Amino acid sequence: MIYDLIIIGSGAAGLSAGIYAGRYLMRALVLGKEFGGETAKAGDILNYPGFQSVDGYELVNLMKQQAAKLNVETIDAEVASITRQGHRFTIVTDKKTYEAGAVILAVGAERRRLGLPNEKELTSRGVHYCVTCDGPVYAGKTIAIVGGGDSSVRGAILAAEYAKKIFLIARRQEITAEPINLDYLQKLKDKVEIIFETEVKGIIGKNKLEKLILSRPHKDSAELIVDGLFVEIGATPNVSLAESLGVELGERGYIKVDNMMRTNIDGVFAAGDVVDHFGSFKQDIAAAAMGAVAANSAYNDHKIHG
Amino acid sequence: MIYDLIIIGSGAAGLSAGIYAGRYLMRALVLGKEFGGETAKAGDILNYPGFQSVDGYELVNLMKQQAAKLNVETIDAEVASITRQGHRFTIVTDKKTYEAGAVILAVGAERRRLGLPNEKELTSRGVHYCVTCDGPVYAGKTIAIVGGGDSSVRGAILAAEYAKKIFLIARRQEITAEPINLDYLQKLKDKVEIIFETEVKGIIGKNKLEKLILSRPHKDSAELIVDGLFVEIGATPNVSLAESLGVELGERGYIKVDNMMRTNIDGVFAAGDVVDHFGSFKQDIAAAAMGAVAANSAYNDHKIHG
Repeated sequence: MIYDLIIIGSGAAGLSAGIYAGRYLMRALVLGKEFGGETAKAGDILNYPGFQSVDGYELVNLMKQQAAKLNVETIDAEVASITRQGHRFTIVTDKKTYEAGAVILAVGAERRRLGLPNEKELTSRGVHYCVTCDGPVYAGKTIAIVGGGDSSVRGAILAAEYAKKIFLIARRQEITAEPINLDYLQKLKDKVEIIFETEVKGIIGKNKLEKLILSRPHKDSAELIVDGLFVEIGATPNVSLAESLGVELGERGYIKVDNMMRTNIDGVFAAGDVVDHFGSFKQDIAAAAMGAVAANSAYNDHKIHG
Repeated sequence: MIYDLIIIGSGAAGLSAGIYAGRYLMRALVLGKEFGGETAKAGDILNYPGFQSVDGYELVNLMKQQAAKLNVETIDAEVASITRQGHRFTIVTDKKTYEAGAVILAVGAERRRLGLPNEKELTSRGVHYCVTCDGPVYAGKTIAIVGGGDSSVRGAILAAEYAKKIFLIARRQEITAEPINLDYLQKLKDKVEIIFETEVKGIIGKNKLEKLILSRPHKDSAELIVDGLFVEIGATPNVSLAESLGVELGERGYIKVDNMMRTNIDGVFAAGDVVDHFGSFKQDIAAAAMGAVAANSAYNDHKIHG
């Protein structure tokens, strides 16, 4: 059987694409390496419109069921390669080989981790990777944000609206961010303390983050007691499959799409965190919308070859 | 009190903007003429990712509550005028006058109606305005689609995947649509019958659509028995407030925005059906994403004047 559409990635973008493909009665399939992508690991989501609070895993599971009801199956499989011959794509996974008339790349981006022991265990238990997503939980608390770029500075500005105290930990002697954001950061110096030329070397806590170990002492101690740690050192879009298909990337290394989520390659669409259509605004609601748009475009273009 | 942000329109775009503004701790307010906009009137929604099925009114009500929990109130009020002086907007409603540092126009578009007696009463009871939204309910049934443009043709193509029989009723002697779609329509002539130079003059039914009265006989009868009627004669974006602020419109008459939902006027953002960022793809998930992006941009830009 040749699928009309194969969607690679089973996060919010991929599953939303699956739902829409199902609505359009396409023979479609969602293939995901890790079910639910970043969303599944997000913990409590408070900003997906329609749900006051929903666990990330629950949200993607609801989407998966919704797609399944429309006859679009989600399979946990890692895609090893995609090759194209005209309007036919061959998708080789670790389990099986599939053929499809179109593909949506919804393969996300990897948030960069510090790579420390304990980091994985304490993720969502004090250790986070997105201030916009998880910051508000720390109202009145003390947090540390790691990173010397725009996302960490913006995180600090946002967190300053509810956190009591913020340590911004930068590896270098300077912070590189948009001038507007730096200006604003200056005004927050009562709340935001920048610790320069310092790295986080250890994450200490049992079941819950308790403190950090710094690469050099801050106020006479290498231990920094915080309620939360936010690692904002960027993300790397997963573009290797895209590149193998000749898909063009944008300046920032994300897949380049038009407003309808079309790439430069006929039959190849992209959605979610692997594109930067909405700049640095990486949220489930945006990913779901892009996935829906990509499925709509795949459906429309499919008619050409129908 | 001066609000950081006033959002005009309380449909999916406006309420999603309200949720995000609340998350950013902005002093924000949502003003809507008719609570919930088009979404509130949509009936069962089957394609909002996360909900297998949700009543449109229930969905917007959930979003309203979510915003309220974040201290963003939604008020039913019709905006009479907006004026701008630098970074200060004055919003006059039928009830009260408000001031804000930024505005999001999420005022939607009006789907054009036939303007017939019974049309309003039978809306969602056989009479619909969006094949993508409501079409799948008519699997195995007979429907009529009114309209001679691309949206009606695309509606017919989509409906052909599940409906038994489709009458496409065009006022003129021709159908104007994208060549690709017309080509595809040709292939569907077993299912899709085009009735040219004909208008729907009457909608008959008690509690539920039963039949249509045509402006001239079709196969010897001016009565056409159908299960569903889809009116696809376009929509008119509500741009009068935008125009009064000097906001630039695009070629198709929608508010022109960049990817971050900024208009040409500093402090004025737009989202939802009043823009055509995603072309003719007008869906709740897309509106909600655009609303969230607009709030994010309002928040970021607000810092400049902070």
